[in-house]
Amino acid sequence: MGGEQKSLRVGIAGLGTVGGGLLNLLADQPEAGDGRLKVTAVSARDRTRKREADISAYAWFDDPCELAASPDIDVFVELIGGSDGPAKRAVEIALGRGTHVVTANKALLAVHGAALAALSEKTAAALLYEAAVGGGMPIVKALKESLAGTHVVAVSGILNGTCNFLLTEMEASGRSFEDVLADAQRRGFAEADPTTDVSGTDAAHKICILGAIAFSAAPDFAKATIEGVDTVTLLDIRMAGKLGYKIKLLAKAERVGESVRVHVHPALLPVAHPLAQIGGALNAAMVDAEPVGRLTFIGRGAGAGPTAAAVAADLIDLVYDAHRPVFGRPVKALKQRGSVGAAEQGRYYVRLLVHDRPGVIAAVSNELGRAGVSIESFLQDPGEAGADVPIVLTTRPGPRQALNAAVDAIAGLEVTAAAPRVIPIEDGAGAPRNWS
Amino acid sequence: MGGEQKSLRVGIAGLGTVGGGLLNLLADQPEAGDGRLKVTAVSARDRTRKREADISAYAWFDDPCELAASPDIDVFVELIGGSDGPAKRAVEIALGRGTHVVTANKALLAVHGAALAALSEKTAAALLYEAAVGGGMPIVKALKESLAGTHVVAVSGILNGTCNFLLTEMEASGRSFEDVLADAQRRGFAEADPTTDVSGTDAAHKICILGAIAFSAAPDFAKATIEGVDTVTLLDIRMAGKLGYKIKLLAKAERVGESVRVHVHPALLPVAHPLAQIGGALNAAMVDAEPVGRLTFIGRGAGAGPTAAAVAADLIDLVYDAHRPVFGRPVKALKQRGSVGAAEQGRYYVRLLVHDRPGVIAAVSNELGRAGVSIESFLQDPGEAGADVPIVLTTRPGPRQALNAAVDAIAGLEVTAAAPRVIPIEDGAGAPRNWS
Repeated sequence: MGGEQKSLRVGIAGLGTVGGGLLNLLADQPEAGDGRLKVTAVSARDRTRKREADISAYAWFDDPCELAASPDIDVFVELIGGSDGPAKRAVEIALGRGTHVVTANKALLAVHGAALAALSEKTAAALLYEAAVGGGMPIVKALKESLAGTHVVAVSGILNGTCNFLLTEMEASGRSFEDVLADAQRRGFAEADPTTDVSGTDAAHKICILGAIAFSAAPDFAKATIEGVDTVTLLDIRMAGKLGYKIKLLAKAERVGESVRVHVHPALLPVAHPLAQIGGALNAAMVDAEPVGRLTFIGRGAGAGPTAAAVAADLIDLVYDAHRPVFGRPVKALKQRGSVGAAEQGRYYVRLLVHDRPGVIAAVSNELGRAGVSIESFLQDPGEAGADVPIVLTTRPGPRQALNAAVDAIAGLEVTAAAPRVIPIEDGAGAPRNWS
Repeated sequence: MGGEQKSLRVGIAGLGTVGGGLLNLLADQPEAGDGRLKVTAVSARDRTRKREADISAYAWFDDPCELAASPDIDVFVELIGGSDGPAKRAVEIALGRGTHVVTANKALLAVHGAALAALSEKTAAALLYEAAVGGGMPIVKALKESLAGTHVVAVSGILNGTCNFLLTEMEASGRSFEDVLADAQRRGFAEADPTTDVSGTDAAHKICILGAIAFSAAPDFAKATIEGVDTVTLLDIRMAGKLGYKIKLLAKAERVGESVRVHVHPALLPVAHPLAQIGGALNAAMVDAEPVGRLTFIGRGAGAGPTAAAVAADLIDLVYDAHRPVFGRPVKALKQRGSVGAAEQGRYYVRLLVHDRPGVIAAVSNELGRAGVSIESFLQDPGEAGADVPIVLTTRPGPRQALNAAVDAIAGLEVTAAAPRVIPIEDGAGAPRNWS
């Protein structure tokens, strides 16, 4: 029953941890897809490299593009990575000739998703990518299929395990970002070149993709606002903690009228926020949609196992011929949505570093008052006192512009010892009204 | 692209809050399923009842079985409820003639799922039921599709919002079960006859279904072990809290060798357990699977909006002809799995009520020691002292049988004022090893 079942010949390009995990999983679970999945060919950089999986039974291709062009595969699994180069060329070749593609490549989808969706539609070849976002957490399918009858208001998440691990470790160990990163690199939890992760780029790729599905619009990576975790200090994590907040790298796509805002930035979340408790390398995604309310997904966002399982799920969808348009709607039905920049309104955390002398609080308060910024809480913690004293405050909801004016003025005060730090507060309110 | 799209004529039986919500949603979201869903006929008890939705445009059937038999619908949506009676007859009629069925009826699936799956397969009519478990939380699809390539070890969850609401309210307000239930009934949060909810039956229906998908076995409701929340006292909630636990109604299906254990019972969860923080009427499900690790889903488990959205998602699956076998695998591939009863091993919470006199602790400890029960923590809280004194203890992992012997002996002691209460502790450990 279901759509007619097909027997699929699978070619896998990229035999790193995920590719190896996939070979293991399909060998271990011969009944996956009711036995209608058969790996027939592979491609990787080095045929002779020692691997856990025995690849001698598969046809070998030195060039992934040749594998993608092979008439002897029905599905091309792309596990090469990168938004351009061989991954893109190979995927284009496969789709161009009507071969289905399953990929874990978020950069490719975020940057070239619109063109690839058009190509997929032209040749009726599926392009599936559950593994690109959230590892084994089935957030792509949930948005594309389970929430297809709803109005999504916002998708937010913790989508980069490395960043979350670093922030969690800083808080737990009281060590600096640089220390914790170096340690994570030694232990293999962070890449030798961690730029894509710590800069927020990886999380931005992922939230662009989720936003595209959620709002029926092609992904537009160039319009995302991105700030990473490399600017987060231990001092801010500690001071935020004293006020009842966690600092997390928040990735969020939200509707603003008919436009979309896609942003990645450090944010203060109240400890009771569903995403505040997500520790270590876990990922989480939260969807606010009418009339469903709020859905939260938590899982391991990376690693060979979860990613391979997500690729396998996509392959099994193909066995059942159960795929949808790339971003949930046909390309012609995707909406042209404008992008808006960082929020102009909100609550903010402001941390100052001032010389410890009388009259400082008055001077700071004066500037805030002059700019019309309303203060919610104010903390000068003697426990943190060194030569200079940190002062933190949170604002009531108000325009960012007014706050910027006040912060600029405070930065110019003679008592100010370092540039003030402003971090948005995400309250997690604004869940849709109870529609029922 | 995708499977060939069909235009589906939908007949809805049952126009209560969920049926009304579905009509609203489909009217509000004409693009759902890319416009290929059209409600054409409805059935309910009373045609003239005042409704929010205008039903004059739909063909009317007094009898849901006649609607199910109508050649003018492609999908029969069953929102009547109940494991037997008209719901069962109508679903059998629809499936029998090859008409797809979408239902929110957990009792029907849990009790008659095996026979219905066979019928569905015989006529190639889909039987979809995302709305039956967890409301808008897409746990059925996640297990059936996203985790199709994995080995599920256990599924556990908080699957009855009414029970969770009652427990949360008891803890927050310090009122008794009876008080809180009466209040919830007045406010419409609990049914006039709450038996199905508070007895654990509803949660058991749901976990039977999830276990069937997770372990590729027909659901076997008769074999489930069920205890409800009606036996939970405020005293136990308070004492558990002092030890760092929450009492939740846990529904769990787990593999035990080649058998399955399906049980619903009050359990102590450490506050850090993913399910411990689920408050109010929320639902949550946690899946442990190889090689994915642990996935957690949180959402509103009931209500017109979430349930209607889940029904709509199933309908859209049918538009894309994207359905799978009823429990994920063809009926002939479903495994015969034995059922095992309540766990014979574990950690337990034991609460005694004793007369306040010297030597009590020694007497109790003697009996525990004699039976070989190893104590982890022991608390006699003077704050709880009345005429009689509660003593609570938690055990180290050990056989339930030994504990029962000790508890029986303690119950017979002259100092014991009331029957001891034993509640299993669910540590939430046992997540699969990191497979990657």
